[in-house]
Amino acid sequence: MSKYWNELTASLVPYVPGEQPKDQQYIKLNTNENPYPPSPKVLEAIRNATNADLRLYPDPNCDQLREALAGYYRLSKEQAFVGNGSDEILAFAFQAFFSASKTILFPDITYTFYPVYADLYGLNYETIPTDDEFNIDAERFCVPNGGIIIPNPNAPTARFMVVDQLKIILDANPDQVVIVDEAYIDFGGESVVSWVKEYPNLLVVQTLSKSRSLAGLRVGMAFGHPDLIEGLNRVKNSFNSYTLDRLALAGAVAAIKDQSYFEETNRKVIATRERTSEELKRLGFRVIESKANFVFISHERLPASEIFSTLKRRGILVRYFNKPRINEYLRVSIGTDEEMDALVSALTEIVQPS
Amino acid sequence: MSKYWNELTASLVPYVPGEQPKDQQYIKLNTNENPYPPSPKVLEAIRNATNADLRLYPDPNCDQLREALAGYYRLSKEQAFVGNGSDEILAFAFQAFFSASKTILFPDITYTFYPVYADLYGLNYETIPTDDEFNIDAERFCVPNGGIIIPNPNAPTARFMVVDQLKIILDANPDQVVIVDEAYIDFGGESVVSWVKEYPNLLVVQTLSKSRSLAGLRVGMAFGHPDLIEGLNRVKNSFNSYTLDRLALAGAVAAIKDQSYFEETNRKVIATRERTSEELKRLGFRVIESKANFVFISHERLPASEIFSTLKRRGILVRYFNKPRINEYLRVSIGTDEEMDALVSALTEIVQPS
Repeated sequence: MSKYWNELTASLVPYVPGEQPKDQQYIKLNTNENPYPPSPKVLEAIRNATNADLRLYPDPNCDQLREALAGYYRLSKEQAFVGNGSDEILAFAFQAFFSASKTILFPDITYTFYPVYADLYGLNYETIPTDDEFNIDAERFCVPNGGIIIPNPNAPTARFMVVDQLKIILDANPDQVVIVDEAYIDFGGESVVSWVKEYPNLLVVQTLSKSRSLAGLRVGMAFGHPDLIEGLNRVKNSFNSYTLDRLALAGAVAAIKDQSYFEETNRKVIATRERTSEELKRLGFRVIESKANFVFISHERLPASEIFSTLKRRGILVRYFNKPRINEYLRVSIGTDEEMDALVSALTEIVQPS
Repeated sequence: MSKYWNELTASLVPYVPGEQPKDQQYIKLNTNENPYPPSPKVLEAIRNATNADLRLYPDPNCDQLREALAGYYRLSKEQAFVGNGSDEILAFAFQAFFSASKTILFPDITYTFYPVYADLYGLNYETIPTDDEFNIDAERFCVPNGGIIIPNPNAPTARFMVVDQLKIILDANPDQVVIVDEAYIDFGGESVVSWVKEYPNLLVVQTLSKSRSLAGLRVGMAFGHPDLIEGLNRVKNSFNSYTLDRLALAGAVAAIKDQSYFEETNRKVIATRERTSEELKRLGFRVIESKANFVFISHERLPASEIFSTLKRRGILVRYFNKPRINEYLRVSIGTDEEMDALVSALTEIVQPS
């Protein structure tokens, strides 16, 4: 606490990202990074952009990247927005579209940054309970509200909501902005990006951090009616004209264009996920059906906190949330086959001590 | 206007950065970019960081860069903060330290992003008139207020305020945060970074965009008492955990470490500025004494708007602000000697038609 902080700063409880320990080498399955490197074409594009032009400001409108994204999704450039990771875009969206006077809604078990944004912008929120299987009930979002955010697939549960359910929410809330956070959509889910042509209240947010193996480059994108995109731009341009540097822009364009590499790595992650899920079930884990690049698991006998600590001692990092309803679960990112074999073999020893 | 925008979004008047035209090649003297490329060591560091690790998140605490900056300025890491350009840091500072209930102060002629931040965070501000020479009068900042921001050198005037005057402001406002925006400090001004050890109310903001030739990389930094830095971190970590990507971090560390390249390019910019200033005076321009990498000039006879348009037609871009008190001035970035020769020769034809 400092006398120089204002009331807001003193009240904030910042988001805590997964640990990035520097003390030893871990098998790192705690922050949902992709185990495969970015496309070689991305690295090449960045190297080509590493030149004297770095003395010049980037394009504040990010036209080339927005055009690439528009082409990819068959939208117009005016329906696309890009930012410094999907986190920055979500922050702008909370600031642009939600108001203190009306309560916003999101699921009780979800990305823990949402309540942080709400606090940062002085918004009231209500969490809608998911069921015992962590399913989101669309009907419960059809009540008066000031805006909705639904992650699909959800995090940390990995649960996917069939898009018919999203339709119910969008139809019931024509006057509110509904944000669908598709950070993990490319691992088997069905995107609703194309719906932005029909639903002026829909904003779909995605990221290059997961399925494009670019967590280190900080690029997120959003799609919506041009009015929503203009709203995001009004906030962004009142905050920082250039949120994406020249290297991130160059790498992102190359990432969007290399479709075959993208499909190949996603296929591998999905195959590893399915295989690992089966093996975890054999070890007595409940595994929530996943459409993401991670699994959410709970053991029938051993406490999650204990498994977490034992794995960490053995050099394997997973994510444990000490929170009501999910404190018996672990979120485990999908690594390479070798990394998951190491995980399964460690867990075998932990749950079946000889 | 859209029904989905909240009251704030509808009311915003975003900052407008200098134009980055794509229609033709210009001699670009409108956004204060450095005419010299970044240090070769910066490009090498970025190329080395362009590897498979881009799949991993960056260090959210940016420890290596903060350590490099702390070493450079003989401070501790806890006295340093880094962000996505100094613009992002200024936004965080406005949000963290200023309150709607108390009026903040800044000069009437200054960086036009300050009132935009104030509006974004619902802050009241009062502008303190500079004199006819655009000097800032320290005494006028010694009145009740909720915080102060002083750019030194000022933009777009290029005028430097002797640091004794800043001392007056800091001493008179022990309970308010005083931000000194040193974006242009390395071109002949005297930095007050070392004062953060004595003044718990002082936050000094700098950038790699100008004197390190890295406008395209988006790296800014701030120095202050650990309490102020923690305040910035609370806001930043409630907004976006990772605002600097791996490439920006690698390039920034290399930039801070290459002192000799930095000194050499700055010396060249300053020499060109001094020479150009003399030539402009010979052409009948009033040139405000500059300690920045740009000059603020006004012609004794010709309207600034007219000179601006004629230069643009001739392929030379400078910055014109159509605002009270400065609408007879042009802000001209210092380019290479060749670029400034082209400018002077164009201006010679414009002001002395044969």
